Amino acid sequence: MTTVSILGGSGYGGGELLRLLLSHPHVEVKQATSRSHLGEYLYQVHPNLRKRTQLKFSDPAALEPVDVLFLAQPHGQAQHNIEQYAKLGTKIIDLAADFRLRDAAFYKEWYGEDHAAPEWLSKFVYGLPELHREELKTANYVSGVGCNATASNLALLPLVKADLIDLSSPVFIEVKVGSSESGAEGNAGSHHAERANVIRTFSAFGHRHTAEVIQELGVKNVSLTMTAVDLVRGVLATAHAKVKSGVANKDLWKAYRAVANENPFVRVVKEQRGIYRVPEPKILAGSNYADLGFELDESTGHVVAMSAIDNLMKGASGTAVQCMNLMMGWDETTGLEFAGLHPI
Amino acid sequence: MTTVSILGGSGYGGGELLRLLLSHPHVEVKQATSRSHLGEYLYQVHPNLRKRTQLKFSDPAALEPVDVLFLAQPHGQAQHNIEQYAKLGTKIIDLAADFRLRDAAFYKEWYGEDHAAPEWLSKFVYGLPELHREELKTANYVSGVGCNATASNLALLPLVKADLIDLSSPVFIEVKVGSSESGAEGNAGSHHAERANVIRTFSAFGHRHTAEVIQELGVKNVSLTMTAVDLVRGVLATAHAKVKSGVANKDLWKAYRAVANENPFVRVVKEQRGIYRVPEPKILAGSNYADLGFELDESTGHVVAMSAIDNLMKGASGTAVQCMNLMMGWDETTGLEFAGLHPI
Amino acid sequence: MTTVSILGGSGYGGGELLRLLLSHPHVEVKQATSRSHLGEYLYQVHPNLRKRTQLKFSDPAALEPVDVLFLAQPHGQAQHNIEQYAKLGTKIIDLAADFRLRDAAFYKEWYGEDHAAPEWLSKFVYGLPELHREELKTANYVSGVGCNATASNLALLPLVKADLIDLSSPVFIEVKVGSSESGAEGNAGSHHAERANVIRTFSAFGHRHTAEVIQELGVKNVSLTMTAVDLVRGVLATAHAKVKSGVANKDLWKAYRAVANENPFVRVVKEQRGIYRVPEPKILAGSNYADLGFELDESTGHVVAMSAIDNLMKGASGTAVQCMNLMMGWDETTGLEFAGLHPI
Amino acid sequence: MTTVSILGGSGYGGGELLRLLLSHPHVEVKQATSRSHLGEYLYQVHPNLRKRTQLKFSDPAALEPVDVLFLAQPHGQAQHNIEQYAKLGTKIIDLAADFRLRDAAFYKEWYGEDHAAPEWLSKFVYGLPELHREELKTANYVSGVGCNATASNLALLPLVKADLIDLSSPVFIEVKVGSSESGAEGNAGSHHAERANVIRTFSAFGHRHTAEVIQELGVKNVSLTMTAVDLVRGVLATAHAKVKSGVANKDLWKAYRAVANENPFVRVVKEQRGIYRVPEPKILAGSNYADLGFELDESTGHVVAMSAIDNLMKGASGTAVQCMNLMMGWDETTGLEFAGLHPI
Repeated sequence: MTTVSILGGSGYGGGELLRLLLSHPHVEVKQATSRSHLGEYLYQVHPNLRKRTQLKFSDPAALEPVDVLFLAQPHGQAQHNIEQYAKLGTKIIDLAADFRLRDAAFYKEWYGEDHAAPEWLSKFVYGLPELHREELKTANYVSGVGCNATASNLALLPLVKADLIDLSSPVFIEVKVGSSESGAEGNAGSHHAERANVIRTFSAFGHRHTAEVIQELGVKNVSLTMTAVDLVRGVLATAHAKVKSGVANKDLWKAYRAVANENPFVRVVKEQRGIYRVPEPKILAGSNYADLGFELDESTGHVVAMSAIDNLMKGASGTAVQCMNLMMGWDETTGLEFAGLHPI
Repeated sequence: MTTVSILGGSGYGGGELLRLLLSHPHVEVKQATSRSHLGEYLYQVHPNLRKRTQLKFSDPAALEPVDVLFLAQPHGQAQHNIEQYAKLGTKIIDLAADFRLRDAAFYKEWYGEDHAAPEWLSKFVYGLPELHREELKTANYVSGVGCNATASNLALLPLVKADLIDLSSPVFIEVKVGSSESGAEGNAGSHHAERANVIRTFSAFGHRHTAEVIQELGVKNVSLTMTAVDLVRGVLATAHAKVKSGVANKDLWKAYRAVANENPFVRVVKEQRGIYRVPEPKILAGSNYADLGFELDESTGHVVAMSAIDNLMKGASGTAVQCMNLMMGWDETTGLEFAGLHPI
Repeated sequence: MTTVSILGGSGYGGGELLRLLLSHPHVEVKQATSRSHLGEYLYQVHPNLRKRTQLKFSDPAALEPVDVLFLAQPHGQAQHNIEQYAKLGTKIIDLAADFRLRDAAFYKEWYGEDHAAPEWLSKFVYGLPELHREELKTANYVSGVGCNATASNLALLPLVKADLIDLSSPVFIEVKVGSSESGAEGNAGSHHAERANVIRTFSAFGHRHTAEVIQELGVKNVSLTMTAVDLVRGVLATAHAKVKSGVANKDLWKAYRAVANENPFVRVVKEQRGIYRVPEPKILAGSNYADLGFELDESTGHVVAMSAIDNLMKGASGTAVQCMNLMMGWDETTGLEFAGLHPI
Repeated sequence: MTTVSILGGSGYGGGELLRLLLSHPHVEVKQATSRSHLGEYLYQVHPNLRKRTQLKFSDPAALEPVDVLFLAQPHGQAQHNIEQYAKLGTKIIDLAADFRLRDAAFYKEWYGEDHAAPEWLSKFVYGLPELHREELKTANYVSGVGCNATASNLALLPLVKADLIDLSSPVFIEVKVGSSESGAEGNAGSHHAERANVIRTFSAFGHRHTAEVIQELGVKNVSLTMTAVDLVRGVLATAHAKVKSGVANKDLWKAYRAVANENPFVRVVKEQRGIYRVPEPKILAGSNYADLGFELDESTGHVVAMSAIDNLMKGASGTAVQCMNLMMGWDETTGLEFAGLHPI
């Protein structure tokens, strides 16, 4: 059995990792840390793990070496301690934003401060298998992905990969998100009485995840607009772009099918009847699928590309486990087989 | 007292009209019709009206003449019967889409069929006071407004009125809507188990309300993208446009403040702290306010304009009552004083 | 104009009071206090008040004398300062629990500590007009009501008043509540991601509001079981009791109709068809109605009595305003005319 | 591989069965039938099955013999066709209510009509493993369970099994349910705009599932009161009973722990800190667990027993698969390993 531990296991990303790793057939979870919940059973914080494990939260200072170390801490911690972590984990997968960007100057541009370990940036592979599958197979250090970046990158992937859109025109991505995105700590606006029933465009542009779209897809003229809606899990990215002259529906079908065929967790949803005709995060809770769809106005070239994911799965912990599977040479889908629920 | 009746009172728009008219100080509600609920008390269908009225639903065929006749029927009926209705109501306010567009060819382009009473199109005034206040004061026939069109028109109004945006660039409007938009009849996707927790981009472009934005604001290069979210009442329009060269934040502030000052139901929401910094439909349920906001990226000229309304109030029945007030020479806000609730 | 001020205006109860008082025709709001929001506009905390008032939050220490002083502070403060408050308000209405119970020993039994001003307990009238209308007309000091106590008391009122139930049998009241009950401060479990989708029986028995049912109705053998559900505003009390031998449906009808006839804000909801056949808090948001219903199993004597209210209106601020109306000799319903919304 | 088919696969119970059976390691799904969706892919109705199966819905008339036939039809059909079905399935598991009651007279009492195949009633085992594990191991015909009955039976099971409650006192069970209970067809009240935000006590007593509590636990003096709340999946039963004289908390702990130890899908939830201290259906979506809890007022003997399940899993399809596992001699938990999600 491969040994794994999680540094920072009491947040939502850490909890989802625990759920996945505790039922993963090839790994043994050694430790999960939490300062605020030190000594509590994991299931006291993550009640879905009751009767699944008798593990308790450990002190981060008491971490022992493992084969794969997952970092699930708040942003900004890993870059200050990466040398130490590298001694604890033969392989490291970091869910935070510390090592997502490849360029220190670009990091400073979006995060407003110097990176604390710029020499490590090039050692990490950006952990989205749909973009970096081959590199991940040999990587020792893998960064997590931003959930909104992932929804956006996957919405545009078929269009960019098949070179169908005009990159000189602006790309507007409207991202709608659930409340688990704000993390287990929450904020003043997270109170159910304030957060329920909202449609709140809380960030018009400038969201940090935008940097991951620019870096990974090379789409420079892009903006992410973030709107909170009444949902716990899920992200829908609705992207507006302009296709190149002459591009038609059949070209898009071909591009989308190709991406779905190459990637076990990508599906194309574009139905003519029934209730579920387009990608929807509703049915993806707990699943690692990314559902993609599109509509093209052939008269104007306006394409609306949609991508739905569970922000805690494909947008965070699910993809992290998928990366581990690739890094370890296991089947990419191991431990990620849950189909999602209907209705929910 | 001015006498009023409602043709089609069992739907959501008709119910909201009834609520408003029954407590309006200057009117007396004579009849509300419904074929399917004939003979039932209004409060059996609209339970909020219990102890407010002992009226029962009448047969549409038994309508008697009144000063103001409201039409709250499904789209497509009023245009076939307008001659008859004109004999029953000295003034007519139609909530449906039959008389919103001024041009018969334009109507056919968007509704896919010939208009049944094209000679009546020019007799109607488009019923949005923020655009047609003066004409409404002398109008006898007033059309209702599309709820999504209203959110979109008000989002762009300050920008268009002050001539701040580049109309040659495309304008993308992302409209997020609650479930009351689909009407009391609903559809297969309206079942709570299917409709709860959704983020469903059900119409990428081509929504009929787009025609009202083109007609009323003269913005030709516009698309409305519709996304259903988990909420009963409320619309948020988030519009993306490009400002003209040199336009700065102060110009937008001036334009928005002007519109808010001229219109009793328009407010500007743009706060630096607190939970409610941007327009949100959540707090508008039952109120007739339209809350407007904006964010400008001065480096690129990308402006994100937001407008939040209650689709049944400012987006339908509230605006219809506001029109009646203007048509009758009453204070524009009469009977529309409800402030909305916090929290809700 | 009668002058009023609110001590503690930034919570949910205080916000609802402000909404009601700012549109009340007979009063002028002088001050609303908040330490944490000192100097902010009321509408920055209660966004529904935007364009309704330019008042800012005052320092509690700067309160000036008024005709009616409302106390909307957390429990436990008023009893320590009542002497001082009595100098600031000719009449006082306290929304907290400090002066609800008449007996100091009973207070200690339920609140676990000695009352700080026991000599004031007898000066207050329990502020539920359906129980104390006549006393309220001459009262200077009025306590607020517990929202769950109010739902429970009104559920049982017709049965107790007409002496229909067997008080030797236990009365179980299942109270289901929304998230605004936990107050604007909230708690760990208030985070939307944890609080959405819940059915959480958080208190099996022993809830403090039980004391108000015992005191006001004389039902000693009663328990309140509290369950949180996914809703912001609203309480439904479903009470189980045993009727006296021989009591039949017609007796209950008579008892319920009598209470509805005597009280402008009580309605009986018991329909044979349609969607809304029983009392539901859903349609009461913002309204001051209490909707009552019942089902009697004549074969066993088991009666299920239901009562639905908006916890912030009939369960708190709405009833407080109703009390003010009575204390001042105004029409009881003044400023409380909002009918509630359908759908919502 | 064991072959299985589902008669009636387009409803919610059938869809959940399909999800479970398609990933079950020991079975092969041969057919799923639907008249209204004949020829459609399963994933067009159950969108979570996309990329999991290319099966299409078959005609019920074209069903071929299999090892295990699941019946997931509306109530009332199986009893008319059971002779025919017995030729198609060596073993039969019926999710509907046709064969849940053992006695034809008792069936008539609760269902208001004669049973169409009374001679078959004794051939079926009531399909709740926590009550009938040993009989299920040799059964050929197994009935499904009512979801509300299951929540109620499991809430009371430790108390009844350990003989702790006074059966002469009435037992009141308040059952709160989500919208998936009303089935995929729904009804007028299922429209999201009417069903969202509800707390609706739609059945005070007399619910048919009550019969299953009477039959299975021998608790005659029991009533189920049903309240709909805003949730898609999930049931919480909160039962009120009176313990026998002298019964103390430690007796209950012992009784609950025993049941949890004997049953792989039963857990006891009774924590002193954290957010999740009591059983909650919220975290059970998709899982087969039943979470049980209790509170005892030792001074009065009033016990509040709670049971939370996912109505489509432990309350229907999950338990049906658990029964199949027992009938086939497989590990009871096979294919039912999903832990549930937090948060959701």
